[in-house]
Amino acid sequence: MKVALVGIGKIAVDQHVPAITNSPDWELAATVSRHGSVDGVEAFTDLGELLETRPEIRVISLCLPPVPRFAYAMQALQAGRHVMLEKPPGATLAECHALEAAAKAAGLTLYATWHSREADMVPAAKAWLADKVLKKLTVTWKEDVRRWHPGQDWIWEPGGLGVFDPGINALSIVTEILPHDIHVTDAVLEVPENRQTPIAAQIGFHHPQGADVSATFDWRQDGDQIWEIEAITDGGTLRLSGGGAQMEIDGQPSGEAAALDGEYPRLYDRMSALVQKGGSDVDLRPMTLVADAYTLGRRDTVAAFHEDG
Amino acid sequence: MKVALVGIGKIAVDQHVPAITNSPDWELAATVSRHGSVDGVEAFTDLGELLETRPEIRVISLCLPPVPRFAYAMQALQAGRHVMLEKPPGATLAECHALEAAAKAAGLTLYATWHSREADMVPAAKAWLADKVLKKLTVTWKEDVRRWHPGQDWIWEPGGLGVFDPGINALSIVTEILPHDIHVTDAVLEVPENRQTPIAAQIGFHHPQGADVSATFDWRQDGDQIWEIEAITDGGTLRLSGGGAQMEIDGQPSGEAAALDGEYPRLYDRMSALVQKGGSDVDLRPMTLVADAYTLGRRDTVAAFHEDG
Repeated sequence: MKVALVGIGKIAVDQHVPAITNSPDWELAATVSRHGSVDGVEAFTDLGELLETRPEIRVISLCLPPVPRFAYAMQALQAGRHVMLEKPPGATLAECHALEAAAKAAGLTLYATWHSREADMVPAAKAWLADKVLKKLTVTWKEDVRRWHPGQDWIWEPGGLGVFDPGINALSIVTEILPHDIHVTDAVLEVPENRQTPIAAQIGFHHPQGADVSATFDWRQDGDQIWEIEAITDGGTLRLSGGGAQMEIDGQPSGEAAALDGEYPRLYDRMSALVQKGGSDVDLRPMTLVADAYTLGRRDTVAAFHEDG
Repeated sequence: MKVALVGIGKIAVDQHVPAITNSPDWELAATVSRHGSVDGVEAFTDLGELLETRPEIRVISLCLPPVPRFAYAMQALQAGRHVMLEKPPGATLAECHALEAAAKAAGLTLYATWHSREADMVPAAKAWLADKVLKKLTVTWKEDVRRWHPGQDWIWEPGGLGVFDPGINALSIVTEILPHDIHVTDAVLEVPENRQTPIAAQIGFHHPQGADVSATFDWRQDGDQIWEIEAITDGGTLRLSGGGAQMEIDGQPSGEAAALDGEYPRLYDRMSALVQKGGSDVDLRPMTLVADAYTLGRRDTVAAFHEDG
């Protein structure tokens, strides 16, 4: 299946291009980007031109930042193409609803991907939690923004989500593995005095069975990078670490890794299946929790952040 | 039909109590409030006690501020009661989804009311716009917070919505009268340096047919209070003023007022119909637009606000 990649930045080069080129199902047929390109692949700077001149490319995969993504996604859908969206699927919930409606009306596939849900041990964690009573769930997502988002100024601009850009990965796992939906009850957003989006956040959640659920996101982490979810249940303690790559039950390694190797190969595999059977996959729960944290959260101003500082 | 009113504050006394007592369909059978009560009506301080001792009261109407509302709504649904929610229906979107799911599972009615949609001329405006091509829509909602929200400190706390508390009324009308859904593309939230929620906001929207749609909300309005929506179309200009009470087409009064007299009598009439035929009415679009404005909006710090200042 031929796919065009729109937005040739860090995530496209690091993840999408290798996942596509190593897949037997997919062919990277074109790219659209102002500056980037991929060796040996036809490069466009305008999506409209690609849609017009390459009608055999049925799938468009969008790796742009969330704010400009809607216009490209709608343009692709209106040109009759299936669309795959990097996370988060948009800058607003309402624009995602509009894309969903457009895809449905046209009989096209829209896939709002959550790459962290494809981490090795996420299915095993979900299966293990399915019959347990949750007592406490603690999310700790602490990384160094300078290491993971070099030069990405858009993350600090309105709509760029700040620390919720990695934090939403954690929330995409939590909403996937928990058998019950949670909602935000309180949040503190720590916003650098020279920025618009938070560098850290602490969130409390309501759990329908009364479990104590909380999350801490922090972009100021030196040394070890921590992407962990600990779930204390009536049947033991699950620890998912490395962003979902490792799983322990009561301190012992546990669980079988999902099929295929790697988050992005699994995403493209799922997209291939969706297009073939028809239908969409648009789960906005992680994004809703972030929007709710923004709406309900207390904002504390913290020290200025300078990338080179 | 017997109804209990939970939260006897300004909106309950000004609107809910007269609407219920003047209706032939409804009887105000009890109240729940820490401090308030209504003459001649049994007063509880605890919802659980009411639910247990007054099983014949099948409908609970919640007029509390949004942050504490979820717990009461869920408690009432779990006790098998139909629930009516003041606007906004909750502090978060995810909690509203949880309430919707609970009501559906139990076969109960959940009605997320939007009182401004029941203003006299809203149905006429909707009917007039249905076959027009929209060119430009301008929302101007400017009122004096000291006059309309005296002593309501919760509006300035996280989750209290600030100027979006009246602004969401405008958005509830806009989402009702426009034949196409809009979404937020940019927003500026003006937040007083001593408060958590905005005192003013300017919002830009995407309209699927390219109309120029914008809203200005301001709580610092002296003199005339302005609650207006102007829609310029290919068939003339509609002006809805007084929060939906008056309508003009090209400067001439126009339209027939809706049946019944007053926003709250219409809400209770609609609740009565919903309970009798079964089913819920939970339209979260106004709240989604607010959450999106919070997520995507730029925050500007403005002068401190003191109620007595």
